[in-house]
Amino acid sequence: MNGVIVGVRKDSQTYVNMKRKACAEVGIMSFDVDLPEDVPEADLITKVYQLNSDPDVHSILVQLPLPKHINEENALGAISIDKDVDGFHPLNIGKLAMKGREPLFLPCTPKKWHKDKGAKSSCSRSVRRSNIVGLPVSLLLLKADATVTTVHCHTKNPEAIIKEADIIIAAAGQACMIKGDWIKPGAAVIDERSQRPEQEIRIPIEASKVAGFITPVPDGVGPMIVAMLLRNTLDGAKWVIGQ
Amino acid sequence: MNGVIVGVRKDSQTYVNMKRKACAEVGIMSFDVDLPEDVPEADLITKVYQLNSDPDVHSILVQLPLPKHINEENALGAISIDKDVDGFHPLNIGKLAMKGREPLFLPCTPKKWHKDKGAKSSCSRSVRRSNIVGLPVSLLLLKADATVTTVHCHTKNPEAIIKEADIIIAAAGQACMIKGDWIKPGAAVIDERSQRPEQEIRIPIEASKVAGFITPVPDGVGPMIVAMLLRNTLDGAKWVIGQ
Repeated sequence: MNGVIVGVRKDSQTYVNMKRKACAEVGIMSFDVDLPEDVPEADLITKVYQLNSDPDVHSILVQLPLPKHINEENALGAISIDKDVDGFHPLNIGKLAMKGREPLFLPCTPKKWHKDKGAKSSCSRSVRRSNIVGLPVSLLLLKADATVTTVHCHTKNPEAIIKEADIIIAAAGQACMIKGDWIKPGAAVIDERSQRPEQEIRIPIEASKVAGFITPVPDGVGPMIVAMLLRNTLDGAKWVIGQ
Repeated sequence: MNGVIVGVRKDSQTYVNMKRKACAEVGIMSFDVDLPEDVPEADLITKVYQLNSDPDVHSILVQLPLPKHINEENALGAISIDKDVDGFHPLNIGKLAMKGREPLFLPCTPKKWHKDKGAKSSCSRSVRRSNIVGLPVSLLLLKADATVTTVHCHTKNPEAIIKEADIIIAAAGQACMIKGDWIKPGAAVIDERSQRPEQEIRIPIEASKVAGFITPVPDGVGPMIVAMLLRNTLDGAKWVIGQ
């Protein structure tokens, strides 16, 4: 079973290394394609096409963020849907959104939460709506019968909405956008940013006193994202073998 | 400019006729493919593939609902994305959901509302989450910076949520699930079911006394769905010509 990680930006090397190490631990052969930061978009896409057509490659991951001169849509859209272990292909997101459809791969950050929690009848608030976390997690929770509100920078009175939530997914760009006294006692609080020790967390420390469940700082959701990525790679390889 | 409407169920003939008549009025050539109700799924899909590869066909619409023995996902998924004027292809829905992506076609029911309303900062509640209305309209409103909550049959205390809404989109299967005194004075109320005179409306009559805007009964959203379908057909033809 073979996975390929395509890295472009130097500052994403920490994540690439983390994923490479995890692959080695579980016996997935990982190959890195390190491209220079000024690689033309067309060259990156040609590389992705080569990996798509290589039958020995079961998963392709283009490490985000990409340098500004590369269009993310073009780069991610080039990945063959059956090797898209990050689950960011619009066809995967569409199937994730739609009732009665199942995506080939679930995006890794929401995937773990989905497996852990029976979200049925929960009143859930996801903060922000990025394609990587906020959007797929809200679609997934909705499919699991939660009542989901996506709170973002244009939301009037976010406090009133968040105070009602049984599950809070903090994935906003701003640190501490959510105040500690907005957390309902016993609520589950997941701070997506807590995986990145160099960045400020989004939930203030006092939240841990009232929350029923809260992601640990540091580490947070990081290790489980990597675990879900390995799982997607395994699923993708099984899918190819089963065909 | 040519569109094809594929009809299978006899009871969907009213909608097929409405669409055919509208096409004729604006100069779109429409061809009906009437298949018997017991048509095998494989035959329907073969027909769709033929239409996909016909350069004289600019739009394909498979009239829903389909007979129970036909898998809706297989039938709709067979339509080439550049002729999918209903906008139900998962790739279209995925692009609709994702920030920074644009679908080729917007599903017709939400399309009109999207064009009419500046949803920015609105607190919007869509009731239900069907692939045809509830889901795409919620994705579209979210993209337009509204704060969207999708209320459904598993939602605890829907009254509290709906009472806060500036825009209410009623697309639930049940009639009058929303009570008249839940409507905030001045709110915009859109009842998707009001297009079908044979079915009970979802919003009670007394709602019209408090709502700032409400869809008319009968007719409701029906004529604009057809208009948006014609618009999508025009856009599809322009897109082919522009290539």
